[in-house]
Amino acid sequence: MIFTIDRDVLLENLNLISHGLPVRTAMPVLTGIKMELTDTDLFLTTSNTDVSIQAVINDASLEIEETGKIIVPGSYFINIIRKINSRKINISLIEEKMVLIKSERSEFKLNLLSVLDYPNIDFVSLDNPINLEAKTLKGIIKEIAFATAQTEKRPILTGVSLKNVDSVLKATATDSYRLSQKTIDLGAAYPDFNLVILSKSLEDLGKIVEGYNENVEVYFNKIKILFKFKNVLFQSRLLDGNYPDTSRLIPENFPVIVKFNKEELIDAVERVSLLSAKDKENNNYIIKFHVKNDHAVEISSTSSEVGGALEEVIPTDPVIGPELKLAFSSRYLLEALKSCVSSQVTLSFTGEYKPFIITGEQDPNLIHLILPIRVEW
Amino acid sequence: MIFTIDRDVLLENLNLISHGLPVRTAMPVLTGIKMELTDTDLFLTTSNTDVSIQAVINDASLEIEETGKIIVPGSYFINIIRKINSRKINISLIEEKMVLIKSERSEFKLNLLSVLDYPNIDFVSLDNPINLEAKTLKGIIKEIAFATAQTEKRPILTGVSLKNVDSVLKATATDSYRLSQKTIDLGAAYPDFNLVILSKSLEDLGKIVEGYNENVEVYFNKIKILFKFKNVLFQSRLLDGNYPDTSRLIPENFPVIVKFNKEELIDAVERVSLLSAKDKENNNYIIKFHVKNDHAVEISSTSSEVGGALEEVIPTDPVIGPELKLAFSSRYLLEALKSCVSSQVTLSFTGEYKPFIITGEQDPNLIHLILPIRVEW
Repeated sequence: MIFTIDRDVLLENLNLISHGLPVRTAMPVLTGIKMELTDTDLFLTTSNTDVSIQAVINDASLEIEETGKIIVPGSYFINIIRKINSRKINISLIEEKMVLIKSERSEFKLNLLSVLDYPNIDFVSLDNPINLEAKTLKGIIKEIAFATAQTEKRPILTGVSLKNVDSVLKATATDSYRLSQKTIDLGAAYPDFNLVILSKSLEDLGKIVEGYNENVEVYFNKIKILFKFKNVLFQSRLLDGNYPDTSRLIPENFPVIVKFNKEELIDAVERVSLLSAKDKENNNYIIKFHVKNDHAVEISSTSSEVGGALEEVIPTDPVIGPELKLAFSSRYLLEALKSCVSSQVTLSFTGEYKPFIITGEQDPNLIHLILPIRVEW
Repeated sequence: MIFTIDRDVLLENLNLISHGLPVRTAMPVLTGIKMELTDTDLFLTTSNTDVSIQAVINDASLEIEETGKIIVPGSYFINIIRKINSRKINISLIEEKMVLIKSERSEFKLNLLSVLDYPNIDFVSLDNPINLEAKTLKGIIKEIAFATAQTEKRPILTGVSLKNVDSVLKATATDSYRLSQKTIDLGAAYPDFNLVILSKSLEDLGKIVEGYNENVEVYFNKIKILFKFKNVLFQSRLLDGNYPDTSRLIPENFPVIVKFNKEELIDAVERVSLLSAKDKENNNYIIKFHVKNDHAVEISSTSSEVGGALEEVIPTDPVIGPELKLAFSSRYLLEALKSCVSSQVTLSFTGEYKPFIITGEQDPNLIHLILPIRVEW
């Protein structure tokens, strides 16, 4: 293998595929990047237990002298290319066991990993894509993925459910104490599907797709899902198991409706949370929420050790409905509020111990639900 | 205790004294901030094993209703004041055991710590100050304090030596493998002194004095040193013991002298360090440095596991002296180079295993010394 390439082009692609390198692995060869040079293209591949990523480079700066296939130690290789500041980089194989990285004034030699040890990465075949705008995909990741479970108690809840019925896609995330759901009109006829993708993989995908604004092609089979965009393939395993039926969780009648300026509510909740007692089971900070008869809302917290906090927030519109008291995790509310772009948000309640929902006018088809908990008042 | 104060004034002073709160402590009361309100001033005090800090506030916004003395839980109190966004804050005592913090829409109650448990903080008496420009003090902290020992093997080396002879102050830091020294003309006649201040305390002081550009008064006795500036007293314990005599360590004749563009040298050393072998004793990355006969300089590293790197750097001026090879810690060289403001730096060598020094024309009275180590070539 011998080739020359523009340093910035190589680095940009290395940054993309770096998200597929394992943090820890029982298979040392996966800490490497597979580089395969054909007569026309350079393929860079990384893979870990959850995710595999491949970038194909056929940039005009790529000068191919000799094809080949090697596994370079991943983090060392990326750090070297990052630190090199010459425009061109020349890469060549020495005696089948080292790679030589040459730039204007510097030379790096890296011991290679064994090509034979590297597992075969099987990408989902590229037939019949579902087309998603990158914006839609980024929306799912930013607006709902945070609501998935962080522990493995119920593994299926660590994923985001993507359920398509009649070309209306419902993306749902829940940890069983709160739920976030986004409904997306796919805009074309696609067969129904029902799959669950790891939230962690979606976060990785979010970082890669960040600056990209065009169409993303989605392919999947029973065990894997593949996203194709630009010159990149991003594949994640799917979660096995039945996602709970959440369709009847979201209430439809709301006796109490309160509208807030979002930033004011966030600030008040953040202040009150400073002195919240911790809920032992989920390590959450619990705040009390009191919609008063005079239509002001009191948010408060008490911690027997430290003290307590009390804050009054004035809703932006007259409150609809009677007095109401409930308590819930301040983090759940803050995460839901921060995922909305609306500057005004609506909290709609059914009762003291029943789920309430958070919506915003500028966030159509997005709904957040939080389950209150029982506390002493 | 009852008073009202401008929120920004209180927060600014809390940020200053927060550096005196202990990270861990066997004395829980020290996690508190001592607030003492007299007829005219508000005193805020924090203290840990190494450092005590006091700020005196007599800002125009301070409205005193009732004097008093309390210990508030430090990090809770600071976080609350940080998060409050009203202009005025009212603070009052409830039943001698809680403090009430009121702003426009919010009320916080914090359980107090016991005033009786709080140790008496004895500040050095304010007689016969030594005057230092803040710039000079910041110079010592930024330019040499990094060279102190990080481990407690020889406790005295975790401090910076400040030795005044005939009003010429030598500030010295060494971990016994490298040394940094700054010489300061005190500009007035002061008695000789010789003391060692904890490097960690100097770093804390550096953060507090950062935005300050005027005169700092320095007071000390046998066990403590006090810095007074603005409305702040910053006191640190002194290290006990004899600081090693470093006066004869710095060589005076240099057969080999090489001048570099500082940034070019830093970049090259950082790249080569990526593939350096680790020196077991000090966890340092070792690089080789070869002043060649053709007057180019080769910097290289080898790691049996990973590979190796080789970089050529062209000195800015013709090299003085014969060929020379030596090896040393790349971190030591990088820290020394980064502490210089000069864009051109001079490395002056006495021999393969003898200390070499780093100086810069724009860094008068500052000298860095590094001891090479023995390696196979």
